[in-house]
Amino acid sequence: MIVEMRTGASKKEVDDVVQKAKSLNLGVQLNVGTDKTVVALLGGNTGQIPTDIFAIFPGVESVTRIMKPYKLASRTFSPKDTIVDCGGVTIGGEKVVVMAGPCAVESEKQLMQAAEAVKKAGATILRGGAFKPRTSPFSFQGLQKEGLELLTKARDEFGMPIVTEVVNPQDVLLVSSYADMLQIGSRNMQNFSLLTDAGKSRRPVVLKRGFSCTITEWLTAADYLLAEGNNQVILCERGIRTFEDSVRFSLDISAIPVLKKNSHLPVIVDPSHAAGNYSLVPAIAKAAVAAGADGLLIEVHPNPKEALVDGLQSLSPSDFARLMDELRAVAKSVGRSI
Amino acid sequence: MIVEMRTGASKKEVDDVVQKAKSLNLGVQLNVGTDKTVVALLGGNTGQIPTDIFAIFPGVESVTRIMKPYKLASRTFSPKDTIVDCGGVTIGGEKVVVMAGPCAVESEKQLMQAAEAVKKAGATILRGGAFKPRTSPFSFQGLQKEGLELLTKARDEFGMPIVTEVVNPQDVLLVSSYADMLQIGSRNMQNFSLLTDAGKSRRPVVLKRGFSCTITEWLTAADYLLAEGNNQVILCERGIRTFEDSVRFSLDISAIPVLKKNSHLPVIVDPSHAAGNYSLVPAIAKAAVAAGADGLLIEVHPNPKEALVDGLQSLSPSDFARLMDELRAVAKSVGRSI
Amino acid sequence: MIVEMRTGASKKEVDDVVQKAKSLNLGVQLNVGTDKTVVALLGGNTGQIPTDIFAIFPGVESVTRIMKPYKLASRTFSPKDTIVDCGGVTIGGEKVVVMAGPCAVESEKQLMQAAEAVKKAGATILRGGAFKPRTSPFSFQGLQKEGLELLTKARDEFGMPIVTEVVNPQDVLLVSSYADMLQIGSRNMQNFSLLTDAGKSRRPVVLKRGFSCTITEWLTAADYLLAEGNNQVILCERGIRTFEDSVRFSLDISAIPVLKKNSHLPVIVDPSHAAGNYSLVPAIAKAAVAAGADGLLIEVHPNPKEALVDGLQSLSPSDFARLMDELRAVAKSVGRSI
Amino acid sequence: MIVEMRTGASKKEVDDVVQKAKSLNLGVQLNVGTDKTVVALLGGNTGQIPTDIFAIFPGVESVTRIMKPYKLASRTFSPKDTIVDCGGVTIGGEKVVVMAGPCAVESEKQLMQAAEAVKKAGATILRGGAFKPRTSPFSFQGLQKEGLELLTKARDEFGMPIVTEVVNPQDVLLVSSYADMLQIGSRNMQNFSLLTDAGKSRRPVVLKRGFSCTITEWLTAADYLLAEGNNQVILCERGIRTFEDSVRFSLDISAIPVLKKNSHLPVIVDPSHAAGNYSLVPAIAKAAVAAGADGLLIEVHPNPKEALVDGLQSLSPSDFARLMDELRAVAKSVGRSI
Repeated sequence: MIVEMRTGASKKEVDDVVQKAKSLNLGVQLNVGTDKTVVALLGGNTGQIPTDIFAIFPGVESVTRIMKPYKLASRTFSPKDTIVDCGGVTIGGEKVVVMAGPCAVESEKQLMQAAEAVKKAGATILRGGAFKPRTSPFSFQGLQKEGLELLTKARDEFGMPIVTEVVNPQDVLLVSSYADMLQIGSRNMQNFSLLTDAGKSRRPVVLKRGFSCTITEWLTAADYLLAEGNNQVILCERGIRTFEDSVRFSLDISAIPVLKKNSHLPVIVDPSHAAGNYSLVPAIAKAAVAAGADGLLIEVHPNPKEALVDGLQSLSPSDFARLMDELRAVAKSVGRSI
Repeated sequence: MIVEMRTGASKKEVDDVVQKAKSLNLGVQLNVGTDKTVVALLGGNTGQIPTDIFAIFPGVESVTRIMKPYKLASRTFSPKDTIVDCGGVTIGGEKVVVMAGPCAVESEKQLMQAAEAVKKAGATILRGGAFKPRTSPFSFQGLQKEGLELLTKARDEFGMPIVTEVVNPQDVLLVSSYADMLQIGSRNMQNFSLLTDAGKSRRPVVLKRGFSCTITEWLTAADYLLAEGNNQVILCERGIRTFEDSVRFSLDISAIPVLKKNSHLPVIVDPSHAAGNYSLVPAIAKAAVAAGADGLLIEVHPNPKEALVDGLQSLSPSDFARLMDELRAVAKSVGRSI
Repeated sequence: MIVEMRTGASKKEVDDVVQKAKSLNLGVQLNVGTDKTVVALLGGNTGQIPTDIFAIFPGVESVTRIMKPYKLASRTFSPKDTIVDCGGVTIGGEKVVVMAGPCAVESEKQLMQAAEAVKKAGATILRGGAFKPRTSPFSFQGLQKEGLELLTKARDEFGMPIVTEVVNPQDVLLVSSYADMLQIGSRNMQNFSLLTDAGKSRRPVVLKRGFSCTITEWLTAADYLLAEGNNQVILCERGIRTFEDSVRFSLDISAIPVLKKNSHLPVIVDPSHAAGNYSLVPAIAKAAVAAGADGLLIEVHPNPKEALVDGLQSLSPSDFARLMDELRAVAKSVGRSI
Repeated sequence: MIVEMRTGASKKEVDDVVQKAKSLNLGVQLNVGTDKTVVALLGGNTGQIPTDIFAIFPGVESVTRIMKPYKLASRTFSPKDTIVDCGGVTIGGEKVVVMAGPCAVESEKQLMQAAEAVKKAGATILRGGAFKPRTSPFSFQGLQKEGLELLTKARDEFGMPIVTEVVNPQDVLLVSSYADMLQIGSRNMQNFSLLTDAGKSRRPVVLKRGFSCTITEWLTAADYLLAEGNNQVILCERGIRTFEDSVRFSLDISAIPVLKKNSHLPVIVDPSHAAGNYSLVPAIAKAAVAAGADGLLIEVHPNPKEALVDGLQSLSPSDFARLMDELRAVAKSVGRSI
């Protein structure tokens, strides 16, 4: 942590900062320049100490954190890639894993048709929402427990592990008893109560990026899951909010190499929620694989025109099958397989 | 809702859209232009119908929603200003209400000193956090139940109603049994489970804006509270995330007149979390009052240098007293009082 | 264009809007709903008429534009893909074109080494900046005319057409007399005087996206070039400004399919300026090709450590050669070649 | 400048960084921690040295700039507030200066009516656009030279100095020969050729903030003007691009105290372009004065319904007169006058 003193800061002001640092067991090195003094604070936990503690002192111009605030999610903490096991399917290895299915579980017929289609096309994990976080209280909120039951039925029928979202700490136990993997949605990335409870479950967790959170905040949120002893965490980039209005969210493609550099956790991409439009999904999905994503989360609906939620971003079974062929070629070109 | 057909869309494609609209009991008017056909869909609930339902049809170029997705929070629904009563203090009337106190309750001494100072300077509601949503699991998480007890002690001692944050649906009952008013933080604006439970409590609620949520999404989130029959809702602008890095968040000053135009709910402003720096708080607070805010939420700490959380954005008691004098002058200049 | 009247707007208010529309030769269709009246305005030029003209009328709630404001750059105007010819190299066809070279021309030796390296690795157009738009007046501003002369020397030596930036309308003639293709930088995307003059030159133009401009604004800016009768325009996505701070700019990968859908112009991607860091360039470059980009603009420096400008984002010759091999594989996987 | 070495960086890697720093005449202090080495580079010009120069070295994790990149615009450079004189009206002193008039000069009658109205209501500088930078080439581009002539006519008639925009370096001489003060628009904030030429003119300059530029970039752009020896520069905040869509741009109210802290230049605010809607202008204008702005730039049109450009954001003469009364009260409440 670097504390820059103001031009003309007094010796007493510098001393007060040094004193405070020592009281926190930090190493201190003074850099006395011609114009100003810069104080370097050293110690393994400077990533977790709030910069405010020093910025508030008289005579301080700025405080800059050098260490990252996240710890357990960092590649420094765990240099080797983490492999996540979801019901026998491994994410983070050579294979690019495709998780597909409807945005919301709507009915047995709809879910079974979707499951059959995505299985046939080569997806290995089934996705489907039972608890839906909706922006308006007057929208369809999901089939909830009934949806979970239908998902397990589809798992048994098609032999695919299932991933589904949990939105309330109170539901973590319930959802964990049905699902192979929990999903924490974008709006809940910093729902720390939910993260803590999900971390305590024995399930792997897909942690979606908050649509306006930095990668640093995202990895720090992952620390909440990891701190509970659960290292089975997958990061899912799903688009960030920008000024561009031709898509729902702008997929942050550079998040993939940045995460690979700074973290040991597997990274997947959800092109469907980013684009908000089925016609843009193939280009984004191929880009994600080319950039090094370990998997994809894609919405497929047997009949998008009848979807209760997010029909426009859902692929039809035939579009999905065509995309899977294209993705296989791209994966191969970067030394991986699907 | 306006459905724009593609240039060259077939009669059948237009008919399919019309058919779908009729099946949803919407009125339909066709506008056949020289280049393209535009279909207007009419009906009171077009604000709640997803645009995807039509955008997915072949031959559709775009779907534009004209009605807002929020309902109960809109000024159309309730043309008269809502007045909120927090333990006898009314928000939304002629008076500009100042709520002040420490970011986090740290100890009895700290809280009592803060309460005494803000009361003396003219604040009428005491703020203080007992449950703290922290971005890192390794940071101080608040005194929790003990913090709530200290807050009620301060209330009894100084005769000020108290507002405090709730972060978990499971805690709503507990926090409601202590606090005069609940606060829902920025990161929980779209925590719909929490909103529903807070709406069910009999307490007034301060709903902070998600730092990357639009005003439309904010008012739609307020609908979750209002839908539970609780109309005692205050909206709190606290800064939005932008590219500007000289502040923590950019206070959206125009949110005040926009909300006043589109909603009946009182609007307050938190300059402390926006600025992230005490030296910027006075200018922003005065601007908020000049722009028509019904109140302010300001962080005050008896000794900012010793604060465990957010010390840099906290005012000292003397800075706060000086600001209150300045705010009284500005309030008077726009026909209000503090 | 859709004009939504306020609930309770008077007949006279509606009539005034209708009258105004008729005075502009627009077709009008009234949609009288139970709550409110919506007026649809029809006509080929509604994309160019300011919405303000109607929004200002009493009784109007909102005005929504359905037609796009750009015309000549739209796919509707020219359904067939435009192919650009830069000194014999065609952009927009089956081949993915790689333009590479140093950020700034620094010296003859540096430029010749860079040109030789990129040519050998398979790039077909040489890039290099002679006029550098720098954020600070105290930074290196480029070799200017001397830089242009060195570029033509490299062209002659290595047989590669050259592309270079022009920043001032006064320099368009000069730069055009040296360069095969002009580049208009991100900060000048809405420098309309420069666009007009560049459009008048007989050179093809690479128009970089303003780092905070929407795709709609970008295509409308391209109209300035096209309106001068110059259809040799290439769009270059180079990253947009977002809140994410791990990169200089966030590359907007979905811009590629969005542009392909809405425009006939070729699309290329500059991964170097987006990432700001050489280690992220390969992942982004591969993603761009997988998403359908027609070309790449990549910074290569014979000795990045000695670069006067943007050394961190420059690839070394050996890194570039390795990337070219990877890009060939990705291009092939999506049915193209390099 | 702080260079953080990677964990495990070799002694040679550290030495190379130190060597490079010494070759640039920078002071060096090594901070060898238990985990990693941090190198502090000291010297008066570290604000202008690109961080890339060090970031590119092997073994470097990150480089953080402590000094600001701007120099002449900084308060450190010139601790005393700069006062700008525009034809006898001073900006930056006790008085809050209101500059008002139409967005575009449309005709003699329109301009004279506007000038008369704003003069009567208390504005002291007349604004009006003769050269209009329009996003589409098919929109009205301003009366150009004829507009300048009308402006001088209005100046003579009403005794008010005039400010008008210049968009092309080639026009600086022409516009300077008519106008008392030049305006550089948001889209040209980083048009460095234009800045240089405007700096060379003998006119004071209003430099509007680029709608997606940071305050640091803005002050660095101001350095281009100041570097030409012209210290008569006014900064104008006019809204930044965010995700919020209820306004055209979000006015960055905290820019006012941030600029007052970091720069000596006067700060004015344009509420009209930010809001994009006349009904929001009064609240924002009052907020700006309360926050400490030295002036306002407000669009007034004698008949907004007939405006050729930006009618919706223009105040009518009666609305403007009412606002001026309100502004006088707010100015007084913060110890200033209008």
